[in-house]
Amino acid sequence: MDYTERPLRRVSSHQGPVVEVTEDIVSLPNGAASVREVVHHPGGVCVAAVDDGGNVAVVRQYRYPFGKVLLELPAGKLEKGEDPFDAVKRELSEETGLEADRWTELGHIYVSPGISTEKLYLYLASDLRQGQAHPDPNEFLDVEMMPLAELYRMAVDGQIHDAKTVVGAMKAMVFLDRPDRN
Amino acid sequence: MDYTERPLRRVSSHQGPVVEVTEDIVSLPNGAASVREVVHHPGGVCVAAVDDGGNVAVVRQYRYPFGKVLLELPAGKLEKGEDPFDAVKRELSEETGLEADRWTELGHIYVSPGISTEKLYLYLASDLRQGQAHPDPNEFLDVEMMPLAELYRMAVDGQIHDAKTVVGAMKAMVFLDRPDRN
Repeated sequence: MDYTERPLRRVSSHQGPVVEVTEDIVSLPNGAASVREVVHHPGGVCVAAVDDGGNVAVVRQYRYPFGKVLLELPAGKLEKGEDPFDAVKRELSEETGLEADRWTELGHIYVSPGISTEKLYLYLASDLRQGQAHPDPNEFLDVEMMPLAELYRMAVDGQIHDAKTVVGAMKAMVFLDRPDRN
Repeated sequence: MDYTERPLRRVSSHQGPVVEVTEDIVSLPNGAASVREVVHHPGGVCVAAVDDGGNVAVVRQYRYPFGKVLLELPAGKLEKGEDPFDAVKRELSEETGLEADRWTELGHIYVSPGISTEKLYLYLASDLRQGQAHPDPNEFLDVEMMPLAELYRMAVDGQIHDAKTVVGAMKAMVFLDRPDRN
């Protein structure tokens, strides 16, 4: 069966600084009409940067939607037309000062596919070199290195909550454990 | 250092069918002012329902923001004031007809904490009984059982992309492997 929902007309559109929100009237597979609200997001990148000692770079950052500081992997939004691989190198360098000689794609995730176009590309970075961080002057975050095994345990035990960090930590752990890599 | 961002005033608010989007002027830790856009989402629930043979219930559903069918764990939005545990039992029954005698909390995730309040509660359900599905008449989805080990492999290999499904499959796999449970 074809489950395609066909757009009939756009009834609302709201442009904000980061996202646009649209409402479309759509035709459902049974011929009925319904409304589909979509949050259009530029997408982003996220990186598990792991050093030779098995430590991963994490940032602690205030997240206004939840009113608290969260522990996350370094990440950021894609700039318009930016290649995800360029973006992740830029974000890692800006937030932590780290550069990496070895990069592995860990796939992409849709963070909320029922309503949002946000697509997030995940990477594993290794063979790290420490350079100078140069965060946005209005971006405040603490960077630290912690054992990847500890971040993985926190993800499994539900002690960290940022979805990209949970996925990135778990995927990085699985990947680095693979006998064909080491 | 205190990284709290203090709201000064709301400059925009847009109410849609599912989400409200607000823009606040906030005071940053360095005293500068900035804008914080927030997508207010009701939150949701997601469940890995695993039978005695190690098969997990998955749904294939058209996702309008991406214009394609995605493979996902059963999930749904919280109704206003609804308890997450009531919601997850309701969603599992509606979408798949399954009921479960054993429930385990797998924690919650923030799917996009830089911009969205969406909080998603994850569960593992087992000791399943098959009842009658009763999907929303305007909701079209195919339900199937597949080996959890296969869903896990697809998550690790980047063949599935829905974030809650990746997290749920990986956490369920870790949890069911734990020697203290079996």
